[in-house]
Amino acid sequence: MLYTAPIDDIMFDLEHLSGWSEVGALPRYAGVELEDIRAALEACGRFCSEVVAPLGVAGDEAGAHLDAGRVSLPEGYAAAYGQFVEMGWQSLAHGPEHGGMGLPRAAGAAATEIVNAADTSFGLCPLLTDGAIDALTKNGSPAQKALYLEKLVSGQWSGTMNLTEPQAGSDLGRIRCRAEPGADGSYAISGTKIFITYGEHELSENIIHLVLARTPGAPEGPKGLSLFVVPKFLPDAAGNPGRRNAVTCSGLEHKLGVRASPTAVLNFEGATGYLVGEEMRGLPYMFVMMSTARFAVGVQGVAVADRAHQHALAYAEERVQGRAVDGSSAEAVAIARHPDVRRMLLRMRALTEGGRALAMATAGWLDLAEHGAETERAAAGAMAEFLVPLVKGFASERAVEVASLGVQVHGGMGFIEETGVARFYRDARILPIYEGTTAIQANDLLGRKVQRDGGATARRFAALVRETVAALRGGDMAAQAVAGRLERAAADFEASLAHLLETAPADANAAYAGSVPFLMLTGNLAVGWQLARSLLAAAARQAAGEDSAFLRRKIATARFFAEHVLIDSAAERLRIIEGAPSLLEADL
Amino acid sequence: MLYTAPIDDIMFDLEHLSGWSEVGALPRYAGVELEDIRAALEACGRFCSEVVAPLGVAGDEAGAHLDAGRVSLPEGYAAAYGQFVEMGWQSLAHGPEHGGMGLPRAAGAAATEIVNAADTSFGLCPLLTDGAIDALTKNGSPAQKALYLEKLVSGQWSGTMNLTEPQAGSDLGRIRCRAEPGADGSYAISGTKIFITYGEHELSENIIHLVLARTPGAPEGPKGLSLFVVPKFLPDAAGNPGRRNAVTCSGLEHKLGVRASPTAVLNFEGATGYLVGEEMRGLPYMFVMMSTARFAVGVQGVAVADRAHQHALAYAEERVQGRAVDGSSAEAVAIARHPDVRRMLLRMRALTEGGRALAMATAGWLDLAEHGAETERAAAGAMAEFLVPLVKGFASERAVEVASLGVQVHGGMGFIEETGVARFYRDARILPIYEGTTAIQANDLLGRKVQRDGGATARRFAALVRETVAALRGGDMAAQAVAGRLERAAADFEASLAHLLETAPADANAAYAGSVPFLMLTGNLAVGWQLARSLLAAAARQAAGEDSAFLRRKIATARFFAEHVLIDSAAERLRIIEGAPSLLEADL
Repeated sequence: MLYTAPIDDIMFDLEHLSGWSEVGALPRYAGVELEDIRAALEACGRFCSEVVAPLGVAGDEAGAHLDAGRVSLPEGYAAAYGQFVEMGWQSLAHGPEHGGMGLPRAAGAAATEIVNAADTSFGLCPLLTDGAIDALTKNGSPAQKALYLEKLVSGQWSGTMNLTEPQAGSDLGRIRCRAEPGADGSYAISGTKIFITYGEHELSENIIHLVLARTPGAPEGPKGLSLFVVPKFLPDAAGNPGRRNAVTCSGLEHKLGVRASPTAVLNFEGATGYLVGEEMRGLPYMFVMMSTARFAVGVQGVAVADRAHQHALAYAEERVQGRAVDGSSAEAVAIARHPDVRRMLLRMRALTEGGRALAMATAGWLDLAEHGAETERAAAGAMAEFLVPLVKGFASERAVEVASLGVQVHGGMGFIEETGVARFYRDARILPIYEGTTAIQANDLLGRKVQRDGGATARRFAALVRETVAALRGGDMAAQAVAGRLERAAADFEASLAHLLETAPADANAAYAGSVPFLMLTGNLAVGWQLARSLLAAAARQAAGEDSAFLRRKIATARFFAEHVLIDSAAERLRIIEGAPSLLEADL
Repeated sequence: MLYTAPIDDIMFDLEHLSGWSEVGALPRYAGVELEDIRAALEACGRFCSEVVAPLGVAGDEAGAHLDAGRVSLPEGYAAAYGQFVEMGWQSLAHGPEHGGMGLPRAAGAAATEIVNAADTSFGLCPLLTDGAIDALTKNGSPAQKALYLEKLVSGQWSGTMNLTEPQAGSDLGRIRCRAEPGADGSYAISGTKIFITYGEHELSENIIHLVLARTPGAPEGPKGLSLFVVPKFLPDAAGNPGRRNAVTCSGLEHKLGVRASPTAVLNFEGATGYLVGEEMRGLPYMFVMMSTARFAVGVQGVAVADRAHQHALAYAEERVQGRAVDGSSAEAVAIARHPDVRRMLLRMRALTEGGRALAMATAGWLDLAEHGAETERAAAGAMAEFLVPLVKGFASERAVEVASLGVQVHGGMGFIEETGVARFYRDARILPIYEGTTAIQANDLLGRKVQRDGGATARRFAALVRETVAALRGGDMAAQAVAGRLERAAADFEASLAHLLETAPADANAAYAGSVPFLMLTGNLAVGWQLARSLLAAAARQAAGEDSAFLRRKIATARFFAEHVLIDSAAERLRIIEGAPSLLEADL
């Protein structure tokens, strides 16, 4: 089997969780109907199943290769990318003013999931282009927008993010790359960047590198960084790729996973770069791209998890092995009938659909923050910013777990590369690392998203969760069961929040010792909340007379998550509130 | 860095946790002193660090290859294996009556750990030989013992376990391999076995396959299986390798990890086999080998985890990135100073040392069961059998987690194969699968080790844990803290046990829906118990005037485990007692 895009689940989330009643009513999306979105995603899904997914296994085996500065990708990649551009999938959620289809963020997230589920190595190229588009849309000059955006939105040109240097990984303040101003207003960029995803390749006609570098006399640390656009080919007068710029690829990494994607060492040797916005403001500008990419990496987590779940479910329903433990069959049965295999499959589904639900809900807030009524943007933006590290942190960590369970469901066959599920386990492992490790997401959550506003957004989040708890109280037995677990988890969150807000100013080490447990607690709660909302929406549709296996599954998933995953919040609370001394006082 | 054998921790466990006061007093080990064991393990550790560990990276890259029926292993393997045999490491814990060094099981477990930490692919060969030795020691005829044991104990010959067939994985009752009796008392073995670890290679002079097959007229299912010895080369009159037997290797698997170890498809085409014991009793005989191998796979988990921890700790103390969160340094610091990196490193250590502690304690019971006073063997054996699925289940699952954390500590570098830690993540993934998946261990625990004796052994286990709780109550603050957590976990275990004993007869599905959570709860409790015992032993040595960083670390590890890992028992209890309906009623 290959891959089937989960259109029904995506559309359910889009309609019921992503704030469609508000987002769909925005002037920005006037005329966009749910059926338009479904049609676009179905077409994208067909393309990805038929054209992209078949690239995966052979692509992983072949890998990307560097030969005399040129990067070759696995067979079929160039043709598939050409079709991807031609069909307009890069443009799906970008503005019509730059040639985009103009669908909402949630539809864009769905498309990102579908492409990355089909082949994560392939999906990384458009993922970074999306980030470059957002960074230039927000901070580029009118001339830069005119020159670059249409070609990036179409996918004709692709984008990259150039942060990391050998001494500067999570610590961007250590970036050394230099930018010397020239007479013509451009800058000469010099230095080495590493781990540059799709830093060199020939899928797109041009590559637009967004590069953090330091101008002469700029202060040390993160505040001395400026952002530059450094095209692989300098656009000529007509805006077409012209002279080759002085940026070369000197190496590709040999990686555990996403092996068909080129991860480049780039040498900038006096390359021509163009300043974005003002000098020294590079880091905040780059945060736009990073935030887009972080959200998208969370979505990649959903993608890899869904793929792993699809394979595991199909295998478990086919593989016959062992008699039923309840003696209900004298013959061996499909392993999906064994309780522990059910446990693994349901856990995989709950974590996958949960991550998707959270991502889709977050996409709604992102749209309201960008296109909503002027008076509501700040509040929507604060909520979106609170949720992005959860999407990234939760879905990427869970992708590793789900992919690992997918191998386990396959037993010995899972360990054989030809089965194809070991690849998901390898691919997933980068997700909690790139675009900011889980600890970086946790620091972002605790420092920027919680401490900075004194916990106001966090408390608003908890209040929204409690509104859902109240709504569940009016429901049936399954809703009641979920209400109890969700309320308990909300209380664990609130107690942890109060503790961290009190502790952090006086004893930062003690607070940050609990930062990742807090991220996981909050991520679990946010996901449990969204799945509880999906239970309510499914129950409402049932009450309106709709009866389907799909709705029953949605309710079962929410309940399983509450009773098997959400209950971890009590232990996280103990780690956060009582765990710091044993963590900080031990010798390593 | 490569690898340093953790001799101090091993000897601490051997002295304080493995029942040395009783085991060392057995007639079997008369004359064996702790210092002898330390000397042997130190020499084994040096050999493994200097000779075996350097094989790992290149060996993983090169892999095992099949060419015209012959298997070639990576360069250096043959020479290293030759030295391994010459130095006697295979024989370390085997009986002097067959040429062994005659050290106790705990020393054997330590040697298994050391070899497998140095290179898991290499370690698999002696691991299976150990199992074959135990199976033949217990069930072989005097002539078979005379013919095979000395050569297996020396490592001159190696052993394999032939269970799996394409349609028969976890479900051994589906084995189809046939054994036709011949006129001379031998049998002609025909069929195909897959996933045979070290099924073909030329490290050893001969390979002794232990094969489950079905004699003519034998009933269907597991009760129709018989066990055969099928040598690659039939021993001649002098007992030396003679004529090639009709068993050939027709393929090697392309695996996610342990890639230097050959995993063979073996075709038996009327191969000459010799019955072990009686016909139809093959499965119980094979269980001896399986039990030895399951314990050893748990030890492999400790090995891979320790290796991952050693690398992560070294990297974290060297890699400088980011300022201290408490503002104590204006400069960037080694990442080991960041609270979340400490959290990961301490978690890695606690899970690693915890797994080792449990394995060493279990080894003590295994020795008492085999060599103890006649009257005490049954009770010791029951406890050992209760603990073996925990060693296998806990340490193998935790190895995956620890190896994954090891990648995470390295950040982006962890994803690059040359860094060397992605290999541990790949290698670890087989451990919860082979020699019985985690679900199989959980079924074994709940079915054979708990239900069969009505929970008697499980209650004895809980009583022993409570003895340790009582001892901790008399200790200092750290001991008190651990006592509270351990007591709570013991209560969660007892409640879960009572629930499962009551539920299983009436509703097997509901009970087995909680089997893996029960395995993990019990494994965590068993490990927390052993680490608590190590805290008491360390505190006693401190009270006696010994002051060392090593003892402080042992105490800190026990406390960290109790406060960060053991606390998961409450959620496991909820899964076991309340989680079955949401698991069983959902549509997949």
